[in-house]
Amino acid sequence: MAAAMGDPALCKLQFAPFSSALDVGFWHELTQKKLNEYRLDEAPKNIKGYYYNGDSAGLPARLTLEFSAFDMSAPTPARCCPATGTLYNTNTLEAFKAADKKLLLEQAANEIWESIKSGAALDNPVLLNKFLLLTFADLKKYHFYYWFCSPALCLPESIPLVQGPVGLDQRFSPKQIQDLERAYDNLCQTEGVPALPYFLIKYDENTVLVSLLKHYSDFFQSQRTKVTIGVYDPCNLAQYPGWPLRNFLVLAAHRWSSSFQSVEVLCFRDRTLQGVRDIAHSIIFEVKLPEVAFSPDCPKAVGWEKNQKGGMGPRMVNLSECMDPKRLAESSVDLNLKLMCWRLVPTLDLDKVVSVKCLLLGAGTLGCNVARTLMGWGVRHITFVDNAKISYSNPVRQPLYEFEDCLVGGKPKALAAADRLQKIFPGVNARGFNMSIPMPGHPVNSSSITLEQARRDVEQLEQLIESHDVVFLLMDTRESRWLPAVIAASKRKLVINAALGFDTFVVMRHGLKKPKQQGAGDLCPSNPVTSADLLGSSLFANIPGYKLGCYFCNDVVAPGDSTRDRTLDQQCTVSRPGLAMIAGALAVELMVSVLQHPEGGYAIASSSDDRMNEPPTSLGLVPHQIRGFLSRFDNVLPVSLAFDKCTACSSKISIQFRIEQLHVTVTSL
Amino acid sequence: MAAAMGDPALCKLQFAPFSSALDVGFWHELTQKKLNEYRLDEAPKNIKGYYYNGDSAGLPARLTLEFSAFDMSAPTPARCCPATGTLYNTNTLEAFKAADKKLLLEQAANEIWESIKSGAALDNPVLLNKFLLLTFADLKKYHFYYWFCSPALCLPESIPLVQGPVGLDQRFSPKQIQDLERAYDNLCQTEGVPALPYFLIKYDENTVLVSLLKHYSDFFQSQRTKVTIGVYDPCNLAQYPGWPLRNFLVLAAHRWSSSFQSVEVLCFRDRTLQGVRDIAHSIIFEVKLPEVAFSPDCPKAVGWEKNQKGGMGPRMVNLSECMDPKRLAESSVDLNLKLMCWRLVPTLDLDKVVSVKCLLLGAGTLGCNVARTLMGWGVRHITFVDNAKISYSNPVRQPLYEFEDCLVGGKPKALAAADRLQKIFPGVNARGFNMSIPMPGHPVNSSSITLEQARRDVEQLEQLIESHDVVFLLMDTRESRWLPAVIAASKRKLVINAALGFDTFVVMRHGLKKPKQQGAGDLCPSNPVTSADLLGSSLFANIPGYKLGCYFCNDVVAPGDSTRDRTLDQQCTVSRPGLAMIAGALAVELMVSVLQHPEGGYAIASSSDDRMNEPPTSLGLVPHQIRGFLSRFDNVLPVSLAFDKCTACSSKISIQFRIEQLHVTVTSL
Repeated sequence: MAAAMGDPALCKLQFAPFSSALDVGFWHELTQKKLNEYRLDEAPKNIKGYYYNGDSAGLPARLTLEFSAFDMSAPTPARCCPATGTLYNTNTLEAFKAADKKLLLEQAANEIWESIKSGAALDNPVLLNKFLLLTFADLKKYHFYYWFCSPALCLPESIPLVQGPVGLDQRFSPKQIQDLERAYDNLCQTEGVPALPYFLIKYDENTVLVSLLKHYSDFFQSQRTKVTIGVYDPCNLAQYPGWPLRNFLVLAAHRWSSSFQSVEVLCFRDRTLQGVRDIAHSIIFEVKLPEVAFSPDCPKAVGWEKNQKGGMGPRMVNLSECMDPKRLAESSVDLNLKLMCWRLVPTLDLDKVVSVKCLLLGAGTLGCNVARTLMGWGVRHITFVDNAKISYSNPVRQPLYEFEDCLVGGKPKALAAADRLQKIFPGVNARGFNMSIPMPGHPVNSSSITLEQARRDVEQLEQLIESHDVVFLLMDTRESRWLPAVIAASKRKLVINAALGFDTFVVMRHGLKKPKQQGAGDLCPSNPVTSADLLGSSLFANIPGYKLGCYFCNDVVAPGDSTRDRTLDQQCTVSRPGLAMIAGALAVELMVSVLQHPEGGYAIASSSDDRMNEPPTSLGLVPHQIRGFLSRFDNVLPVSLAFDKCTACSSKISIQFRIEQLHVTVTSL
Repeated sequence: MAAAMGDPALCKLQFAPFSSALDVGFWHELTQKKLNEYRLDEAPKNIKGYYYNGDSAGLPARLTLEFSAFDMSAPTPARCCPATGTLYNTNTLEAFKAADKKLLLEQAANEIWESIKSGAALDNPVLLNKFLLLTFADLKKYHFYYWFCSPALCLPESIPLVQGPVGLDQRFSPKQIQDLERAYDNLCQTEGVPALPYFLIKYDENTVLVSLLKHYSDFFQSQRTKVTIGVYDPCNLAQYPGWPLRNFLVLAAHRWSSSFQSVEVLCFRDRTLQGVRDIAHSIIFEVKLPEVAFSPDCPKAVGWEKNQKGGMGPRMVNLSECMDPKRLAESSVDLNLKLMCWRLVPTLDLDKVVSVKCLLLGAGTLGCNVARTLMGWGVRHITFVDNAKISYSNPVRQPLYEFEDCLVGGKPKALAAADRLQKIFPGVNARGFNMSIPMPGHPVNSSSITLEQARRDVEQLEQLIESHDVVFLLMDTRESRWLPAVIAASKRKLVINAALGFDTFVVMRHGLKKPKQQGAGDLCPSNPVTSADLLGSSLFANIPGYKLGCYFCNDVVAPGDSTRDRTLDQQCTVSRPGLAMIAGALAVELMVSVLQHPEGGYAIASSSDDRMNEPPTSLGLVPHQIRGFLSRFDNVLPVSLAFDKCTACSSKISIQFRIEQLHVTVTSL
């Protein structure tokens, strides 16, 4: 009769599956791994999770993965059991969807099966607790798609309950419970593990003994028809064991069903409530081991997790909303840069670019465009110097300013530019100095600039150049480039110079003088006298960086006041609007290419003729000058030698002299 | 005794000088003239001012110049006297300062002197009222420097007062006053002028007569020792006449001192107070004409105005503060553009550029940079289409967005881009459409886009292309360019296409098919079959616009879904950060060059080989394609023919078919 038979569901053992618990830290670490290590590599990766048997009632049995999941040697948290898994991170959502989940499960199940058959699982029971994680990380949106699987081998038929689950305190006396607790703790301590996932138990009224699986034959020597096995059980339910028991029962059936007809299972649950440890809520029950002859083939397996809707399907977690927007912006910007290294330029040394400190002299049309391009390259340290205010005609051509900045006389450009960079990307370290650059030919005792102010400006400029790696000359007069060129030359700083005509431009790196001593700075590699010296350079081929000219080398007139007596169209640099964007972008790209060259600013200058040759850096050529002609949509790459009577960069003595002069002037105040 | 002699200052006639009154309208008009007409021309210009004799007491005697000053045929305001002047507008502040003011004054004085000697001033007394205006307009800052001069010839010695000034009502009876008023008005009416600067008066108790200077011999026939002259007097002071009397007295001395020993002067002042006209406050006095023999040389002259500080020096007016900032921004932006036309590219037709309506499909890296360059060129009508939202990685590379725009899921790009343009320049007409561009290979009935929405999108896209002149294709997928390319081809709109690789780009204009009929649109000149047809084009030389290929002409595969199954570095266009700025700038410069060509989009394509030849437009070449290679800092200008089986632009029938198909689809809803 049906009533006598009882509820068939109660008569057959059922298991509470794991819920995957993927911590934010896990996704963050996956992002980092993907960006910096895996890149396009889709090969399976070993990862590690853990589970706990001390949760409060009501919590599901969870398999937790956190940031430490990628470190196989990371310690398992106290009182937790480890689980090892395999990460399948795909490059595309399509690959994620198309992954052969049946096959992946079978492969994992087979490994478990082999460890059971070989006995390896007896020596190392963690082998029974495998998991799989299939992921796709959409790092543009911070959407993470995943599907978790904890493979469980299925016995050929269901497992009849001989005796239904009851609380441990209904079977064990308080003393037995205490003895079990002590015996388990001692074994963990002896083994040096925070918890034992599976163990053997022997008990009578006076003693409770526990042992490792690998000792089963010795331990169970005296037993005949029934053994007791212990399982560290993450489940909280009074009627059901958790998932880890499944593969253990398969092992038991495979190993012991010929010896024992039934197995008593103790689901070891261990919690501390208000400071008092308690294992009495553990459950205990007895199952009949199926008496089937196992074929050597791996049994059927299950384990792919259901999604939130209860169906078979992947889950998605959107972390963009719970991340700090500023952090999010930083990682997004990093991502875009790192993507370049994945496939296109694997040898690109991004750190050299991102860490460079750039001083922009001039925050006008060129300065704004240079700053924008530097931001695009991830440069974090940008300093502006300018003494002008934003006028109404600026915003349409100077892409860091808006109409509002022009009101009430206009904000100072240098400060407004730095503010704007912060608004674009809060992670940038941008500063602005509203100051004049002292210029030859411009009398300092004119009404607008006092002598004292000019001295302070010289000192300030020197300090700024000293504290930066690259100096961009982006002013609108020739003569304002002179003093920075002199100072930067004496300090061996890389100088990138850009200047506009109406539809022509020049973008160039200044020659970088040989250092007075070795290793004098980041941009001076330890051996700047390079291959070029050996090649015996012809006039304009293979000219190394230290022989290259500066902006003033081709000039024979000393810089004077070029702003005097200029008509309106000469005063403001009248140029085709696209020109500054092109020149500004090229100035930064030239800097980046130079930085990628192992010899930096000492690199041999590429010329137009080198366009057919193997490029010297992963990004291509490192020209001395790029001269552009917008009317012909053409660029040429001239190379010119330093002029030994140049007013800005000639002979160390002259430079030293000038600098010391300036020092004397400044310090004599 | 000193007391008997009286105050010598009272005994000699003194004159109240003119105050120059330069209206804001005058400076505005000067700005326009300078920008559009004078440009770099410094030659003297005739201008015109006026003065009034009806001001309230306390106001200085002003010579007013307003916007009408440049129109010599403009009517003089009612009851005002005209004065003709010469404008010397310099190109630089230095030229302004260096102007030879003594010489300018002497030249003007000499002209007056000649008109006195020749008698021309008798016929046309306005010749006595010359003025000079020396100006420098700093149109960048809206600072106007000026120095005004009303040249007055000096008699060899000072002019003794025979009888000091008294009010007219102390000398004339009410009837005489009324008679004078009537006689003056009648003479003005007869002459058809609003006022007479100088006139002759004869009076007794019963009659008051007035006459023109040229009739002096007839009019004064009966007089012996004294004549009365009238001067329209802008001065308000009871003791002093205004400046216009000076040259008149020199004329009188030169003409009449041999006949008459003294002259009675009536300074005619004419005001209306509370509706009642009154000339009784006019003043009258008598001076002794110096009995000197005039040499034929021009007497010494004075007249340069003192500045606000009371010294001899120029004045400056700063109009930037009193102008509406938005107007100011507009004129500043205009100025920068017009400066190009002054000297560099005098034949540049700015209107063709400024008035063009641009549709930007894509508001990402390329879209933002294209929009920025269009703004620089003064383009006022810019429309964005994009369906994406701003993500955290965008602002550092997409120069219309900031960090704030990324929060809360990100603003729609098209709308945010349009908003930003308004913030940059309030005068722009920018709109954004947050919509998808239907793409082949992307199923429309997917979850995100409904069929109905796709139909609406097609219709909307067609309307947008119809209502713009130039269509920019700036998307990040190949297939999204297809439908706009088809529609734009059928509507004969100029298409500018830009696409990025990692360090390469292509910027091109699509071939523009011959119109079905003549004069079918702005970009279709009336005779598109041009010189190129006659030349018998070789394979890749002299290919006219209508034979050029489109983006799809070189492709043999139909556009499909290129976003499917792409890895992260393929999904987002990973490119060197400077690339989009360069390509975006070149896309606009290409458009501008094409617009400058008399044949517009039908212009023969320039190739790399044409770089040595005479360019076809004032801005240079009009290539078909610009292909750039950033690693080599190189651009090439390939030209390719339209492919007669192109999936986008081949044969009108095919295009018509597709369009009509779309129409049917859309309208069948």
